[in-house]
Amino acid sequence: MATSPTPADKFSFGLWTVGWQARDPFGDATRPALDPVEAVRRLAELGAYGITFHDDDLIPFGAGESTRDGHVSRFRKALDETGLVVPMVTTNLFTHPVFKDGGFTSNDRDIRRFALRKVLRNVDLAAELGARTFVLWGGREGSEYDLAKDVRAALDRYREALDLLTAYVLDQGYDLRFAIEPKPNEPRGDILLPTIGHAIAFINSLERPELVGINPEVGHEQMAGLNYTHGVAQALWHGKLFHLDLNGQRGIKYDQDLVFGHGDLMNAFTLVDLLEHGAPGGGPSYDGPRHFDYKPSRTEDFDGVWASAAANMRTYLLLKERAAAFRADPQVQEALTVSKVADLGTPTLDPGEGYADLLADRSAFEEFDADERAARGFGFVRLNQLAVEHLLGARPGGGPE
Amino acid sequence: MATSPTPADKFSFGLWTVGWQARDPFGDATRPALDPVEAVRRLAELGAYGITFHDDDLIPFGAGESTRDGHVSRFRKALDETGLVVPMVTTNLFTHPVFKDGGFTSNDRDIRRFALRKVLRNVDLAAELGARTFVLWGGREGSEYDLAKDVRAALDRYREALDLLTAYVLDQGYDLRFAIEPKPNEPRGDILLPTIGHAIAFINSLERPELVGINPEVGHEQMAGLNYTHGVAQALWHGKLFHLDLNGQRGIKYDQDLVFGHGDLMNAFTLVDLLEHGAPGGGPSYDGPRHFDYKPSRTEDFDGVWASAAANMRTYLLLKERAAAFRADPQVQEALTVSKVADLGTPTLDPGEGYADLLADRSAFEEFDADERAARGFGFVRLNQLAVEHLLGARPGGGPE
Amino acid sequence: MATSPTPADKFSFGLWTVGWQARDPFGDATRPALDPVEAVRRLAELGAYGITFHDDDLIPFGAGESTRDGHVSRFRKALDETGLVVPMVTTNLFTHPVFKDGGFTSNDRDIRRFALRKVLRNVDLAAELGARTFVLWGGREGSEYDLAKDVRAALDRYREALDLLTAYVLDQGYDLRFAIEPKPNEPRGDILLPTIGHAIAFINSLERPELVGINPEVGHEQMAGLNYTHGVAQALWHGKLFHLDLNGQRGIKYDQDLVFGHGDLMNAFTLVDLLEHGAPGGGPSYDGPRHFDYKPSRTEDFDGVWASAAANMRTYLLLKERAAAFRADPQVQEALTVSKVADLGTPTLDPGEGYADLLADRSAFEEFDADERAARGFGFVRLNQLAVEHLLGARPGGGPE
Amino acid sequence: MATSPTPADKFSFGLWTVGWQARDPFGDATRPALDPVEAVRRLAELGAYGITFHDDDLIPFGAGESTRDGHVSRFRKALDETGLVVPMVTTNLFTHPVFKDGGFTSNDRDIRRFALRKVLRNVDLAAELGARTFVLWGGREGSEYDLAKDVRAALDRYREALDLLTAYVLDQGYDLRFAIEPKPNEPRGDILLPTIGHAIAFINSLERPELVGINPEVGHEQMAGLNYTHGVAQALWHGKLFHLDLNGQRGIKYDQDLVFGHGDLMNAFTLVDLLEHGAPGGGPSYDGPRHFDYKPSRTEDFDGVWASAAANMRTYLLLKERAAAFRADPQVQEALTVSKVADLGTPTLDPGEGYADLLADRSAFEEFDADERAARGFGFVRLNQLAVEHLLGARPGGGPE
Repeated sequence: MATSPTPADKFSFGLWTVGWQARDPFGDATRPALDPVEAVRRLAELGAYGITFHDDDLIPFGAGESTRDGHVSRFRKALDETGLVVPMVTTNLFTHPVFKDGGFTSNDRDIRRFALRKVLRNVDLAAELGARTFVLWGGREGSEYDLAKDVRAALDRYREALDLLTAYVLDQGYDLRFAIEPKPNEPRGDILLPTIGHAIAFINSLERPELVGINPEVGHEQMAGLNYTHGVAQALWHGKLFHLDLNGQRGIKYDQDLVFGHGDLMNAFTLVDLLEHGAPGGGPSYDGPRHFDYKPSRTEDFDGVWASAAANMRTYLLLKERAAAFRADPQVQEALTVSKVADLGTPTLDPGEGYADLLADRSAFEEFDADERAARGFGFVRLNQLAVEHLLGARPGGGPE
Repeated sequence: MATSPTPADKFSFGLWTVGWQARDPFGDATRPALDPVEAVRRLAELGAYGITFHDDDLIPFGAGESTRDGHVSRFRKALDETGLVVPMVTTNLFTHPVFKDGGFTSNDRDIRRFALRKVLRNVDLAAELGARTFVLWGGREGSEYDLAKDVRAALDRYREALDLLTAYVLDQGYDLRFAIEPKPNEPRGDILLPTIGHAIAFINSLERPELVGINPEVGHEQMAGLNYTHGVAQALWHGKLFHLDLNGQRGIKYDQDLVFGHGDLMNAFTLVDLLEHGAPGGGPSYDGPRHFDYKPSRTEDFDGVWASAAANMRTYLLLKERAAAFRADPQVQEALTVSKVADLGTPTLDPGEGYADLLADRSAFEEFDADERAARGFGFVRLNQLAVEHLLGARPGGGPE
Repeated sequence: MATSPTPADKFSFGLWTVGWQARDPFGDATRPALDPVEAVRRLAELGAYGITFHDDDLIPFGAGESTRDGHVSRFRKALDETGLVVPMVTTNLFTHPVFKDGGFTSNDRDIRRFALRKVLRNVDLAAELGARTFVLWGGREGSEYDLAKDVRAALDRYREALDLLTAYVLDQGYDLRFAIEPKPNEPRGDILLPTIGHAIAFINSLERPELVGINPEVGHEQMAGLNYTHGVAQALWHGKLFHLDLNGQRGIKYDQDLVFGHGDLMNAFTLVDLLEHGAPGGGPSYDGPRHFDYKPSRTEDFDGVWASAAANMRTYLLLKERAAAFRADPQVQEALTVSKVADLGTPTLDPGEGYADLLADRSAFEEFDADERAARGFGFVRLNQLAVEHLLGARPGGGPE
Repeated sequence: MATSPTPADKFSFGLWTVGWQARDPFGDATRPALDPVEAVRRLAELGAYGITFHDDDLIPFGAGESTRDGHVSRFRKALDETGLVVPMVTTNLFTHPVFKDGGFTSNDRDIRRFALRKVLRNVDLAAELGARTFVLWGGREGSEYDLAKDVRAALDRYREALDLLTAYVLDQGYDLRFAIEPKPNEPRGDILLPTIGHAIAFINSLERPELVGINPEVGHEQMAGLNYTHGVAQALWHGKLFHLDLNGQRGIKYDQDLVFGHGDLMNAFTLVDLLEHGAPGGGPSYDGPRHFDYKPSRTEDFDGVWASAAANMRTYLLLKERAAAFRADPQVQEALTVSKVADLGTPTLDPGEGYADLLADRSAFEEFDADERAARGFGFVRLNQLAVEHLLGARPGGGPE
């Protein structure tokens, strides 16, 4: 069945997701540590294609070289045995207390230098394991108190760090790009580069912007009340969707990291439609990993962990089916036409037309009947209802409304 | 007294603010229309420096040329008599039903052309009145339903519009720059370019990005739960703070447009500190108009309107006083030092240092004692408490804690 | 088909919903006024069962007796012809400027008296038309500024109003109950009785609490980030769900009033399940009207209005089908058992057990192995995934997971 | 100085506040454990009056009787030496993994029984230490998934638990009342009894409602976007404000537990005004402990911990000063009169007036000129501006506006 995942679906998981021990701000761990090798094996059995990790997920913070090598080689062996790949690697600059005011933008310069070194070391490992994307989630880069952080100086330091990292990968000849993961808050009161937009704006100021894109997460945008599908579309428009994190969030509250689709299901549907079908009439718009960055609920044991991992993939595939049926439905096509959705692809100006021509076009203004035009309906509600019914599986063959 | 406004303070108001008739989604107008000439006179008396407007605030939608000229000439006369200037003008692409799906990005191409014409016409008026900034609030550019709007095509159209407008002002020799005003939602379910970050990212993709900046509004960022002071700081960092809208908002809800300082007072304080004092140790970071885009509450009559206009200015000046005292307090300076706030201005790398040097610096990693460093406190709470006490006027001369 | 509505489904609509002219805080009306008689006819054709209204929807504010009678008799005639009933009536205490600081709790006593009279007059009409529920939405009862409203005095006045109204219906022998509709904010900065909980708490303080319940609205609870299904369940538990308002809302923002299901679809699903199936194993938990209080989007013409009206009903019926399939699925039943959902219905104490017995039960504490018990998983994620799949129509016959 | 705390100010702190080791969802502890005896001594030195605790703050979970007695007796000794009292005690039903689906409302009945026993045991300790309030924060009572929790059954179990507890304290003759602490979410996706309103509604359904009130927390209400001062006022109106938790929160996001006043400062001001001055013209409205339930930021060392503890008290006292000056200012009194704030205390009906009299009063309706009355302004903005200026310390003696 189309809803059984295979590596061709490019589903990947963070080691820290299935391995989350379920410690939260008000409670202790409910699950024991998970051996990374076990994670690799189980995810491979479930049909995943890749696994990703923070350095500290695989190798304890502060471990010496030989310990490190031992952990890496056990992990590589499991990858080789299962065929799982490592499309992305990331560095933990948030768990150890030394990063309590951030890594790249800590007010303490020695900590900034330490953070850079920690990342550089892990970049080597990422390249060694064949990762193509290196994610940077700056969860501690921020403040609780406006006057405790000089935001402009912090952005200077952030830029300095990125410029150093891109110089490094370029010189080393690594085939690796960086992806910044925005988040508005938690664990800091306000995090720097809080949304997709802020991160892309920042990237444009870097020395090598072509090596840096973003890794937007469903829940992080939704924690700011923003539309994730809109955000991903803007990132695609900028050519900056280097990677993405799928999960579920139920509105503006703490970071829930639910299973993909267990939050705003309609927005998950339109996201899958965008990723798989691009613009109306277009092909896929993103061909990278479908990466799940979620947390199996704290109420679950390991059976629940694996059930939740499978649920992410299955929901994605079901939504992909629903989106395909939506696009194939003649009534949807007709509704899209009524709503002029594809007409937005037509330039507002005629070919070669400049402002002088536009100003000379009396039909555009002097003779334009605004009231008459205003009375025409766009049919958006009907279009959305067709989407809801496809999402509900109620129009499998595109039957009558 | 320092808290009586004068034109040197550069306070400006939208004509639509004091002129708001207080019609809201659930209620009819509570105040009659205000003559723009009366608005000019009263604001001048109160100490304002400028007045701004949408075309439709001054001239009824669809008015013919002679009506238009009459309105403009009456208005100019009042400006001349009072000395009030027009630092900014903007176009209304949201009130008339024809813009119900947007102006520049309406799915209906004829409407997009009409919108461009409406703006071009108003750009001429802006230049004629000496405005230096032309604001674009695309409040109707967006959607309620994800599948009803092709966001990437919409951004293409948005760019097309901006590229045409900047070509026009350049060719006309107008000394006028554009400023996009972001907003996350309301009146559309999701508005395009929802935050400061999204707008700056977009601007970087334009043909003439140097002619386009942003006009961030306090309440609009706070409606997404974002820190306005942080956003303004990032905008300054990008050189994109062309103008700004001051008002008050009490959290994530409908757009309240309260008096400046009647929302998040601490954030208003840190904003004024940023605008007036820039980075720690620096000078002013913004010298444009302090523009109030607020709505006198619907419960008020005209006495309340003018009291509320005065309140905006007085609160700004009081916060400016508080910020100056904060910066001058030796204990604050000492607390800033403990918190290493200014140290963030020091580059993480030594002069001339590259990654190779950093990798060779054993003190940065191999010999760095993360646990020891982690144990040091940053003193941020004490620093913030000093800020609160200055805000409360409790440390006028910087007395003992 | 089960998804074609009939009067037996008890769907009702506010006259102000299909009749909304689409004036919003930033824009003028996009649709002409709708004749109430036309609304009755079209809703009847679509399969609705009832229509509801505010006094001012039917009769212009301030109309004299004969005008009033004319409007009412035309409306009654349409009801008689179509068979549509009027299950609920409500009074508009928010549109006219006189109510700018509220009706029952305006700081101005004369306005409070006027508001009471307006409601009393409309209660007579409600009774005359056979309504069984009289809704009170106190959208203007509140404040923007904490110090401008003495909340305790306001609650005294609110109670005074309700006590008078219940005395009145009791004495008149009307078979009519009141239902308070909570909302957290908009159009006031903070509205009194902001949530389901606050309203029920208040009702318990009235002279005749049995005559007063609540009318919770999907979007209103979700505007406070609250779970609507949870809220309705608590209202049912208190015996206070007298009526309800169905619509859609996409998170914490302005009041959207989308079509039911066009917001949080999963929460809509669990709501329908609760209304139709009650507790696990139980029967229907609510048998009143399924009342839609939504707004056809401003982008729509009248075709869109009627399509949106139909969409509300169809989505409800589709969700009802999905919920029935969910309940009938043996795997769901098994998952519910694993998750011990029904076990929560078993009292914690044995029959007749008191605290002394519990204290004497060593198995409950001294011999209870908390660590062992903590290690057991609840299987909630799997259960929720089954729900998602039923919602998606992916398990019509309850097939294998 | 009035801003130096003394025990007469009744400031109390949770042991878990200054003792928080600063472990958060993304990071490890940054501070070592704090000896409860040290906490007692330091808080006493700072001028506090009381200390409160969860059982597990003082005595490790699962400790035997003798270990328990040792901890308690060391603690009592410190209390005796310092004069600090224990006005409130509470039980931890959220940290241990066994409570992952809640305590009183866990789907697992054995866990419910264990939870009851844990609380009963701690009630004895509370009584022994002289506490008058026993707080119940049901942070784990809730769900992430709507269908995983039968809310009505959960409320039955919650009631069962409260009825047992009140029976117990009554029979034991303890002078102890219970206070439920509402919270909307975190750590559960949705928590039962999410707001002040829901909790009070629930309490009315208990066997002994007089023994149960609420303990509302600033941040918890603000996490739902609700006005804390309004909520406290409604709680006072119901006679249910048994205790309260003061802290700071910056909007709708994760639970920040900042220092009191470091969040919404204006709302903190109006709260202090309400607690200290009650209704306009009235006396204090709450005489219980001013309890701080905050977390010293994770960036702080122990110096920062004690500075933050002091900051809570100092901010409260400064706000108390500001509120007193506000009430004493003749211009404020005049503005309150214009705004008719105190008029809301006058019943809407005349003494002895019933609905028949009201219906006969033509001045209330037939002769009431709604348009004329609507045109009058309430002056709320001016009143609020006076409040802002008092808050800023800008009108210490109530000088001219």
